[in-house]
Amino acid sequence: METIIKIRNVYDKNCPTRHVLDRIADKYTVLVLIFLQNTPRRFSELQRMITGISQKMLTQTLRSLERDGLLTRTVYAEVPPRVEYALTPLGETLIEPLALLRGWAETHIEAIVAAQTRYDHQHE
Amino acid sequence: METIIKIRNVYDKNCPTRHVLDRIADKYTVLVLIFLQNTPRRFSELQRMITGISQKMLTQTLRSLERDGLLTRTVYAEVPPRVEYALTPLGETLIEPLALLRGWAETHIEAIVAAQTRYDHQHE
Repeated sequence: METIIKIRNVYDKNCPTRHVLDRIADKYTVLVLIFLQNTPRRFSELQRMITGISQKMLTQTLRSLERDGLLTRTVYAEVPPRVEYALTPLGETLIEPLALLRGWAETHIEAIVAAQTRYDHQHE
Repeated sequence: METIIKIRNVYDKNCPTRHVLDRIADKYTVLVLIFLQNTPRRFSELQRMITGISQKMLTQTLRSLERDGLLTRTVYAEVPPRVEYALTPLGETLIEPLALLRGWAETHIEAIVAAQTRYDHQHE
């Protein structure tokens, strides 16, 4: 009997865990998923809320996240058709780590800006 | 007396918190910072460990993280000069949320791969 031991190495570009981390450690992924927390949203709502994201990039991000099983895309038979994006149970498990990251950014913003100012003075 | 209330909105491309989140929600940032946990590293060690990152991208990532006050770059006067990167105390506070993200990727890899397979079958 053969035993296959899968060695996971998140630093290895050929490891599936690296691919998953690459996907979730992405600014638009984070913003889309935390915006979907508790509430399904339409494409136009996402685009309006997450400023600076192009239509193409939002489309690509949503499709990748749907493929990964993190969100669902539901088309309602209305005129015009309504399309809603919602977290799957798997996607919901990502909210806690992503919310921590967002909280970190909000908590440490002053320290970061101060560090940037110091760095720029030193490298003028 | 004027009171300035700063409204933080992580979704707003002009908000400093969005800039910070954009920086930390980045695949190379995550890999560099967790690899520096507990141990200062040289450029060549980072490049060897994090496969697939170009020299230019690693240089840019390290410089941005130094500017943000998340790591230090120390040059030791040896021949040839030794340069080491290490987390700052501020950078260390990021390790816990980043390690959670990495743990999420490692824990849910099978579910993601299964979802991708289902999606690809449905969209053949």
